[in-house]
Amino acid sequence: MRRLVKKSHAIVLLVGVICFSIAAAQAPDASQGVVKYRQSVMKSHAAHMSAMGRIVQGQVPFAEHVADHAAAIRSTSKMIPQIFPEGSGTGETRAKPDIWQKRSQFEQAALTLQQESAKLVEVAQGGDMKEITVQYLAVAKACKGCHKPFRKRK
Amino acid sequence: MRRLVKKSHAIVLLVGVICFSIAAAQAPDASQGVVKYRQSVMKSHAAHMSAMGRIVQGQVPFAEHVADHAAAIRSTSKMIPQIFPEGSGTGETRAKPDIWQKRSQFEQAALTLQQESAKLVEVAQGGDMKEITVQYLAVAKACKGCHKPFRKRK
Repeated sequence: MRRLVKKSHAIVLLVGVICFSIAAAQAPDASQGVVKYRQSVMKSHAAHMSAMGRIVQGQVPFAEHVADHAAAIRSTSKMIPQIFPEGSGTGETRAKPDIWQKRSQFEQAALTLQQESAKLVEVAQGGDMKEITVQYLAVAKACKGCHKPFRKRK
Repeated sequence: MRRLVKKSHAIVLLVGVICFSIAAAQAPDASQGVVKYRQSVMKSHAAHMSAMGRIVQGQVPFAEHVADHAAAIRSTSKMIPQIFPEGSGTGETRAKPDIWQKRSQFEQAALTLQQESAKLVEVAQGGDMKEITVQYLAVAKACKGCHKPFRKRK
């Protein structure tokens, strides 16, 4: 009888371990979903900046696209504090631990980008390409102001 | 005297050829500026689609970002006919010659994307995630509807 109880315990334990392993293998790593999402957000941000850079440098004649790029840049800038939640610093990410360890500094850098992007939207609506260029450079500086302390080098 | 004239003609010709060669080497290829620009535009479009895909699939909880991604997707959709001007099909590009040879078909495909993106902005404002998902898939289908006939495979 004792042996039977021991055996059944062992079976229950084994089944438990198998079930847990299957669940762990199937469940997506939530933090990696966030990492992938923010990589897409930052990629769109960078691509709008790159496109707008070609306009302000006069490489392409699409001045009428400036306001749309500026609006998108402001939108993605506003998302930044949210897309770096606590616990999303692991796995394949260039986010430095300082984002969470020096959170107020990080949020200040993100706020600067938001403010500069908001100004970019304003001057883009005005349509003066010189003013737009100056403000575009201010946004680019704000990007760097966050990347330098908070993003790992490649 | 004749010899001197001939010699001076030769020198003028030589100087002319050298100047032209220098100018040609320095002048940026205008069409490549457009190609790079549109690659940034399409990259931002794809990144917004990818980000929004993760929201509608429930991988990340950022439902409040949906309207911003939708707006950016509509903006870049509207740019498409302009960023494929005549003569921008050379160099490092996956754009097929059919974009210019079957222009009206290409513009129709771009228009479909614009219309679906405009609807996405509308439903995104409504906030119903089921409706948003359905419309997101319609936009993704419209992307494919242009990539399949008009973009070279990698």
